[in-house]
Amino acid sequence: MNFRQIDWTPDGAVRLLDQTRLPGEEVFLELRTIAEMIEAIRALRVRGAPLIGVAAAMGLAAAARDAAARGELTAEWLHRRASELQAARPTAVNLSWAVDRMRRVGEQALARNSGGDAAAAALRGEADRIWEEDAAMCRAIGELGAPLVPEGATVLTHCNAGALATGGIGSALGIVYVAHQQGKGLAVVSCETRPLNQGARLTTWELTRSGVPCRAIVDSAAASLMARGEIDLVITGADRIAANGDVANKIGTYALAVRARHHGIPFYVAAPCSTIDLATPDGGAIPIEERSADEVAVAPGVPVSNPAFDVTPAALVDAIVTDRGVVRPPYAETIRGLFE
Amino acid sequence: MNFRQIDWTPDGAVRLLDQTRLPGEEVFLELRTIAEMIEAIRALRVRGAPLIGVAAAMGLAAAARDAAARGELTAEWLHRRASELQAARPTAVNLSWAVDRMRRVGEQALARNSGGDAAAAALRGEADRIWEEDAAMCRAIGELGAPLVPEGATVLTHCNAGALATGGIGSALGIVYVAHQQGKGLAVVSCETRPLNQGARLTTWELTRSGVPCRAIVDSAAASLMARGEIDLVITGADRIAANGDVANKIGTYALAVRARHHGIPFYVAAPCSTIDLATPDGGAIPIEERSADEVAVAPGVPVSNPAFDVTPAALVDAIVTDRGVVRPPYAETIRGLFE
Repeated sequence: MNFRQIDWTPDGAVRLLDQTRLPGEEVFLELRTIAEMIEAIRALRVRGAPLIGVAAAMGLAAAARDAAARGELTAEWLHRRASELQAARPTAVNLSWAVDRMRRVGEQALARNSGGDAAAAALRGEADRIWEEDAAMCRAIGELGAPLVPEGATVLTHCNAGALATGGIGSALGIVYVAHQQGKGLAVVSCETRPLNQGARLTTWELTRSGVPCRAIVDSAAASLMARGEIDLVITGADRIAANGDVANKIGTYALAVRARHHGIPFYVAAPCSTIDLATPDGGAIPIEERSADEVAVAPGVPVSNPAFDVTPAALVDAIVTDRGVVRPPYAETIRGLFE
Repeated sequence: MNFRQIDWTPDGAVRLLDQTRLPGEEVFLELRTIAEMIEAIRALRVRGAPLIGVAAAMGLAAAARDAAARGELTAEWLHRRASELQAARPTAVNLSWAVDRMRRVGEQALARNSGGDAAAAALRGEADRIWEEDAAMCRAIGELGAPLVPEGATVLTHCNAGALATGGIGSALGIVYVAHQQGKGLAVVSCETRPLNQGARLTTWELTRSGVPCRAIVDSAAASLMARGEIDLVITGADRIAANGDVANKIGTYALAVRARHHGIPFYVAAPCSTIDLATPDGGAIPIEERSADEVAVAPGVPVSNPAFDVTPAALVDAIVTDRGVVRPPYAETIRGLFE
């Protein structure tokens, strides 16, 4: 991985690779305000549940630094900005989780009455911790998941659960990178991932950069490749995992899980424990974001149903690879075990 | 249906709606030569197995008329042009079938030694018959299939098996149009159909023109809609049907069939008997066209697997609606019965 998907600028702004410009152009944005970060999240310039969490935390720290310089960093400012950030996208739990962590740290720092600059420094420290923890979680997922990948296997993946989705080497692609580094000689098939083509644009870009053999297919070609015996396993990321093991992820994940089961191919989900929401009992309780019709090229005036995510029932998931271990059914028990 | 997808010009050329420009623009092409027709077929300006057959026959008649005017319409000319046309696309059997009909009629006319103009007139007559028969087959499919559509049903379809794919009202959409005219109050969900978006561009265009309520989804959202109970039945067209009932159709059809079965939703295929190739014992014998990587927006240098079609095993097909009747398993017997 020879690029930085996210970083600080020398003066404390957030430097972000604009993913909407890939693979054609590598454009880096410098974000200073909450409004800029919300725009970047909504427009998918930064995407992937873990990276959204990291970016939101860093964005809050960057904006807090400027607010402190203006003497405006108060508990009220913090609450308002945190709420605005949390509303930027509804499905990923990491966003809400990371911003809650930041809010608590900021509240404590402000309660100490040691000044806005000290509170801003505490927020910057917490954002750094969230980022570093995410990178470490990716590495752990990669190392725990790599044994699931046979020698010479072809891995099918959907969307982008890679470096471009996290603060580290990725979740699903973290497993791929570690298995590749172990010399397993694997190859990746990346689903295009309509409507925003994250698989075709982002996953192939980062794998090619890293020397991992990969090719792209349209989403609906996956069943044909499975029928021809060209896929050995499926690994996807997750945007939210319910307490019973139901998985919300990019639209098309459920469709892949159905096809993998039909063809007897293992279907694995890779995600840090921060993606698991024990307060969500099952997939039915996960809000599914409906995105704009503009993302699909229809005739004028034709309505579009454009859900951004789907829910894969736990029964179709052979294992969930987390940073704390690989869990298998019955998920209600094994997932709870991760938190004990 | 208030448009003509194909027609003659007053001077005997073929007037063709350029489907690559829809839904944005309605551009009509006037094609006179075999090379122009081959380009239109290869570039998908005209597509859909039945309409390709009609267009190829009309194109051969148009070119024969000009060849006769130059005194060049010979059996050798006819064989060379027919072979060139048949090679334009490999999967659809209608193309080969229609051109074979034209070749036989041309040979007989030339053997009568009544002159090139008479042979050209015979070819024009045969092209008209192929076109009119196709329109009649569509109507028959629509009327035979409409009873499969419950009142108020939502029909999921893939790609475009409509007026824009045939010389008439379509096969899968023929059923939709007839059911709509019967006042069944149905609605259609059209899969986008990557990589060329025929569903989003063409199916929604022609249904909207005809007043049939429809909306578009990305291909991989179909499973979510099925899981939510929003789909009552699936109807697709076919590019070739083997003697055992295996169905070659647009990539993604097999994926839909797997998901329909998983959700207990009926999966129907609609196609004229000319789409059935009794000489093809099963789907394994159907050549699958691999199209250009340019159709998928990948990072530079990334390979793409881009099969244009897939094969749905007969076991996943609940019924095949043809112009001669609706057949159900065991297809090896019931399909043979259509030809007795």
